[in-house]
Amino acid sequence: MNTEAASAPEADRLAALHAVLESGSVVKAKRMLNALHPGEMAHVLQSLPPQQRRLVWSMVEDGAEGQVLLFLNDDLRDELLRDMAPSRILAAAGGLETDDLADLVQDLPATITREVLNSLDEQRRERLETALAFPEDTAGGLMNTDMVTVRPEVTLDVVMRYLRRLKEGLPDLTDNLIVVNREGRYLGVLYLTDLVTNDPDDSVAEVMTLQVQPMLATLDARDVASRFEQLDLVSAPVVDEDGHLLGRITVDDVVDLIREEADHQFMGQAGLSETEDMFAPVLLSARRRALWLGVNLLTALLAAWVIGRFEATIQQVVALAVLMPIVASMGGIAGTQTLTLAIRGIATGHLTAKNMRWLLRKEMAVAVINGVAWALVIAAIAWTWFGSAHIAMIIAAAIGINLLTATLTGALLPLLLERLGIDPALAGGVILTTVTDVVGFLAFLGLATLLLV
Amino acid sequence: MNTEAASAPEADRLAALHAVLESGSVVKAKRMLNALHPGEMAHVLQSLPPQQRRLVWSMVEDGAEGQVLLFLNDDLRDELLRDMAPSRILAAAGGLETDDLADLVQDLPATITREVLNSLDEQRRERLETALAFPEDTAGGLMNTDMVTVRPEVTLDVVMRYLRRLKEGLPDLTDNLIVVNREGRYLGVLYLTDLVTNDPDDSVAEVMTLQVQPMLATLDARDVASRFEQLDLVSAPVVDEDGHLLGRITVDDVVDLIREEADHQFMGQAGLSETEDMFAPVLLSARRRALWLGVNLLTALLAAWVIGRFEATIQQVVALAVLMPIVASMGGIAGTQTLTLAIRGIATGHLTAKNMRWLLRKEMAVAVINGVAWALVIAAIAWTWFGSAHIAMIIAAAIGINLLTATLTGALLPLLLERLGIDPALAGGVILTTVTDVVGFLAFLGLATLLLV
Repeated sequence: MNTEAASAPEADRLAALHAVLESGSVVKAKRMLNALHPGEMAHVLQSLPPQQRRLVWSMVEDGAEGQVLLFLNDDLRDELLRDMAPSRILAAAGGLETDDLADLVQDLPATITREVLNSLDEQRRERLETALAFPEDTAGGLMNTDMVTVRPEVTLDVVMRYLRRLKEGLPDLTDNLIVVNREGRYLGVLYLTDLVTNDPDDSVAEVMTLQVQPMLATLDARDVASRFEQLDLVSAPVVDEDGHLLGRITVDDVVDLIREEADHQFMGQAGLSETEDMFAPVLLSARRRALWLGVNLLTALLAAWVIGRFEATIQQVVALAVLMPIVASMGGIAGTQTLTLAIRGIATGHLTAKNMRWLLRKEMAVAVINGVAWALVIAAIAWTWFGSAHIAMIIAAAIGINLLTATLTGALLPLLLERLGIDPALAGGVILTTVTDVVGFLAFLGLATLLLV
Repeated sequence: MNTEAASAPEADRLAALHAVLESGSVVKAKRMLNALHPGEMAHVLQSLPPQQRRLVWSMVEDGAEGQVLLFLNDDLRDELLRDMAPSRILAAAGGLETDDLADLVQDLPATITREVLNSLDEQRRERLETALAFPEDTAGGLMNTDMVTVRPEVTLDVVMRYLRRLKEGLPDLTDNLIVVNREGRYLGVLYLTDLVTNDPDDSVAEVMTLQVQPMLATLDARDVASRFEQLDLVSAPVVDEDGHLLGRITVDDVVDLIREEADHQFMGQAGLSETEDMFAPVLLSARRRALWLGVNLLTALLAAWVIGRFEATIQQVVALAVLMPIVASMGGIAGTQTLTLAIRGIATGHLTAKNMRWLLRKEMAVAVINGVAWALVIAAIAWTWFGSAHIAMIIAAAIGINLLTATLTGALLPLLLERLGIDPALAGGVILTTVTDVVGFLAFLGLATLLLV
């Protein structure tokens, strides 16, 4: 058994593949690659620069292509799909489970989608259409329709006989069988662990678990994820409003969801999409980045315009130009801390309109303490540096004002943006720094104009 | 069946509990609370402000306390543990599985840890000591030692008889039984789905899966997470260097790990810890925030000092003071984008020293395109605003220099910091903005001094 190699970090295995690729041994590289799980092949592809990527993609065996596409981030998947012949896409789609197919179909051009739909048998087409009927970010959009159901009145022995006759075995990540009544309404689940540890003569009704609450197909994906996290689920049944079983959600899709949501938060703050491919074409990246730089230029120009209003004051007291970035930057830092806490709180569901005023009160108390403390420190520095008590007082007041404004903005902005349907992870940071720059410069230079000139 | 209520979003259930709490009906609130899963109780606690939190914590039934503590973030857990009597902590620890107990024990004062260890029977104490022997951020630190093993030579029928005799049933999240030889070396896994779908007369050896590679106990937690993600695992066996089975890792702990790592990245950029409790005591929060504000003040002072070197120049051309924040801010934005991409790349394992030069080349190409484009736009704006071709040329050059420096820093910094053992998620942003501020002001004011004065 080759424990050593199997447990080696990704980087080492990737390095081994790299070495083989560089040695030009295509046959060996192909064998190494196709011994991997589709998720690992996707990982390798995403770690490769464009040219090697095309070479490696051409080495993936036909049967695995569909699965590999699913594990890729959206950007790279779109790029590869664009270059694939329709017949090859059809073949790749053929081997997929319904929920996976639903994910893939949404990225295909309409003509190919039609061909894919036509190539399916009636049962699969119906299932696919059910899956496509729900938005991607709901329980219905996440669910898989491949599952095994049982009736409550049969014995465990009968269940096991039934399972042994299943030609295809049980779907991946099956930790329970779903118990439904004659009308297809959800009743409970029969865990495999209970199936194998109880008396074969017991009935399903006696052994099944009733506590597993099904999820409504319309439930928000974020709530699906927090229920999986809070209840430590492997899979969860999905029902319609009348309690009819529609499908099941498995933890692998929830893990992807959590990763995507987290990436969205992290990347969004820099104006990047969570689907951003590290080795995307230069022109595509440049265009996307340009947009964000443009947005930020507008806010920088606004700040510059505020400073411009005080040109005369600065000309008389140049120390103001030296100190003004400090006022803006301290406000930006304090505001970002509160903003980050609030965005995370909304994402985890810990922060709602109900407990908002508690957070605001606490954050403002923190801001008052730090506002006073740092205002004094900075005033002392400014006094020592420029020998002017007036400038020291002015910068202390401006720091205090900016820290309080920044905290207020950081706390209230995320919930406000959510209510307006604007994504706080994307817009929050830009709006906040605009506020802290403008208020910082305005307070500092404004007070200076009033008191010094 | 109450499908509706069960599928209601967290916020609604929390609101219902809030309403009952406010109505003062303690008995009803207690019943509602204790009907929840420990993960849900933890969620409720984290959403409550301090006073209500203490009230609700006192309502949690003794048997659930240990589990609830595990689902809380570290800060709140520590706070609650501090107020608990040793006897109550012992009781809470009693009901936990070994890996969970190991997590909890690490947060306890040494005296109580000793008491907990003494209260365990020998088998549990040994298991706990095994779990505590590995660092928290390795496969060994994540693993659970409660698992069921079988021998390859027995039949499935014998396995099922054995399972039915297990008094406690199978551990949570058991999707497979682990097959070991006489010496306790790992051989493979027997999926429950295969156990129930194959002929009872087949032997374990015939039905077991050999492809599941065990993880070494020393494997880094981040690699554990990416293997779970890439292979869609529910659980994975953990072995020592000789292939002896030590325990198993389950997906619920991996989900927590992914969430923590993501929170760390997101919160770290604002100098916050991923364990930060939204409703932490004001003084604790103020102290922690103060540290970050202090670090940032140092970088702001450095930038101010750079500006201070050019006081004479600014006095002559006040337009420079107006425009200089634009140069610093555009550099900061461009650099942050590259930095974010690189930090995410390292976290996902897509970026390594091997493919670093590809990323650098691509990002520099993007920076050249955007540097030239935005330098021209900003030059045009500056020319229109201040009517000086000289200032326009100077700001264009400074923007170009700063965008290139920022991108170079953003790309190289994360790998460099990793190599130095410094956390890029925490330090990356501060160092980057220090560089972009200093280089931005220096390039702009320096060129102006050379060319204008």
